[in-house]
Amino acid sequence: MAQTTPNHKLTVSGWAAHDASGVITPYTFKRRVNGDNDVSIKILYCGICHTDIHHAKNEWGNTMYPVVPGHEITGVITEVGINVKRFKIGDKVGVGCLAASCLKCQFCRGSEENYCDEVQFTYNGIFWDGSITYGGYSEMLVADHRYVLHIPEHLPLDATAPLLCAGITVYSPMIDHKLHRLIEKRVGIVGLGGLGHVAIKFAKAFGHHVTVISTSPSKQQEARKLLGADDFIVSTDPKQMESKRRTLDFILDTVAAPHSLGPILELLKVNGTLVLVGAPDKPLELPSFPMIFGKRVVKGSMIGGVKETQEMLNFCGENNITCDIETVTSDKINEALTRLANNDVKYRFVIDIAGKSSTL
Amino acid sequence: MAQTTPNHKLTVSGWAAHDASGVITPYTFKRRVNGDNDVSIKILYCGICHTDIHHAKNEWGNTMYPVVPGHEITGVITEVGINVKRFKIGDKVGVGCLAASCLKCQFCRGSEENYCDEVQFTYNGIFWDGSITYGGYSEMLVADHRYVLHIPEHLPLDATAPLLCAGITVYSPMIDHKLHRLIEKRVGIVGLGGLGHVAIKFAKAFGHHVTVISTSPSKQQEARKLLGADDFIVSTDPKQMESKRRTLDFILDTVAAPHSLGPILELLKVNGTLVLVGAPDKPLELPSFPMIFGKRVVKGSMIGGVKETQEMLNFCGENNITCDIETVTSDKINEALTRLANNDVKYRFVIDIAGKSSTL
Repeated sequence: MAQTTPNHKLTVSGWAAHDASGVITPYTFKRRVNGDNDVSIKILYCGICHTDIHHAKNEWGNTMYPVVPGHEITGVITEVGINVKRFKIGDKVGVGCLAASCLKCQFCRGSEENYCDEVQFTYNGIFWDGSITYGGYSEMLVADHRYVLHIPEHLPLDATAPLLCAGITVYSPMIDHKLHRLIEKRVGIVGLGGLGHVAIKFAKAFGHHVTVISTSPSKQQEARKLLGADDFIVSTDPKQMESKRRTLDFILDTVAAPHSLGPILELLKVNGTLVLVGAPDKPLELPSFPMIFGKRVVKGSMIGGVKETQEMLNFCGENNITCDIETVTSDKINEALTRLANNDVKYRFVIDIAGKSSTL
Repeated sequence: MAQTTPNHKLTVSGWAAHDASGVITPYTFKRRVNGDNDVSIKILYCGICHTDIHHAKNEWGNTMYPVVPGHEITGVITEVGINVKRFKIGDKVGVGCLAASCLKCQFCRGSEENYCDEVQFTYNGIFWDGSITYGGYSEMLVADHRYVLHIPEHLPLDATAPLLCAGITVYSPMIDHKLHRLIEKRVGIVGLGGLGHVAIKFAKAFGHHVTVISTSPSKQQEARKLLGADDFIVSTDPKQMESKRRTLDFILDTVAAPHSLGPILELLKVNGTLVLVGAPDKPLELPSFPMIFGKRVVKGSMIGGVKETQEMLNFCGENNITCDIETVTSDKINEALTRLANNDVKYRFVIDIAGKSSTL
């Protein structure tokens, strides 16, 4: 039951899940007309994030069906509101997870809108006007300009799209930990998927020694040769794990499934930090011993604020960092979601929204 | 099977557990003769720590029987080695958890011996000479002087004994978090036992607003009136927990049983820190959502180094901080352990080692 308001007069084609089967089908819905603070965006590409699966299947129990997923959106501005000075028609832009926040609290004032207690997301959120938000699996989006990002001119819009969620999700905790200023730290990346592969790129761009920690020995060669990782640990091999005990300064855990943090924590030096960015639907296991004996730290981190997201995009522009993607047409969304659930993607699916689907 | 060395010539009376029943019985064993770097201590009091139960019953799976527990030791020096300059016969001293460490690593050099990779404990450890260490449930102790603390002259030796473990365990993470320098923070203490009650005293002495979070509504009055807590939350009452959401800056979790950190984490402000000091034998539950949505931090902390323990004792001397204790004679150790396992003590048992037992 989607709420709309009288100014929701735009008819938009998109793709939605309608129940916990999570199956995505074409869906026509309404968006608000472009307001004074809005920009309208012709969507060209939208990344497929693991969160889309969680919502499509109601795995977090909070889905408002029908849900139009997608929060890794790139496209071109087609209309600007009268109050909008930072954007003009034709600009290449991106929209990530954020649709609204209170604009008044300390977090909004400090551009950490993602931690505002009233934050609302690009889909499955409630916008200021009371309407349910619909995401980027659609032809066009109307967004408040305060949550819209400029895409550096020479970055391709398809491979840039996943930076809007996967990218900022791994960039923000690295900046928070000062990895852009520290020298030659030992960084571990747990999980080599959409988040993990771009985390390697950032950590290498910051000049650190990067170890990938993965359950899949088969990923080793590509992690080293293609993505530039310096070391690789198979996490299911106790000997390898033991041999790397107390060697890492910082670990980014990108795994979206429940797991024990114990063996991973043992890889950290005393005082080392592990940052969680995945959101499993069940609690993680946190054994006390590796925490207290190593005075270790576990932190949570969720995407990033608007200012930091723009800084990340600019950094990516300067360092030619984008995601490694597989582009799919809109008729292949369900197939892509299934393959993503099986970790069968290198490394992020991106929907070519404007492209012709192969069966049409 | 205790290992000894040829210089273990001192016959000492004590109390030991001999199997996983955890029952403590009188036990006569050998200690080394006082070495050049040692002091000999006539033990007067020894606190009973929850760790003693874990070891007596082999709950951590690493007990070397027979085990003589006890690492909250106070007494008087009776002999000093030729290299010992800081102590003289008759000094009031304490010994905590630490018996040996490598003396060379960065942690030993920085007096964080507790995080040395080769740290050995006061009981159930392996000393430099290869012998198994026996703790404070005994008449006397021979200890390397580098792990021995001065007790401020006017502090009573019985109520001071638990500071050697319970006290430093809660003091160290507060100092690490700069609570001795920060102004009027909102501090939460989870669990009102041996650790929790002294944590309240430290947090109040540092000038903070202190909230006790407990499963026992019956403890409220005493927490407020006797111990000086400013607020009290019954953790099993979802309404109380919800009403205090995002209100605390720092939480110290002293609970030694497995539990979920989720509801407790929700009490923290964004960026807030929870420190674990308990050591449950099973993993804690760590749900991802309160971690990532609140950018929250969970840290481990284990006792403290020698220098910091001395600083804590000096601080306690200046501020008249000791533990609230029940003194028991040696024939009541098993009863005390059972009552401690049932949280039936206000707030720490201390064995009057030199006192006459009621049945002798």
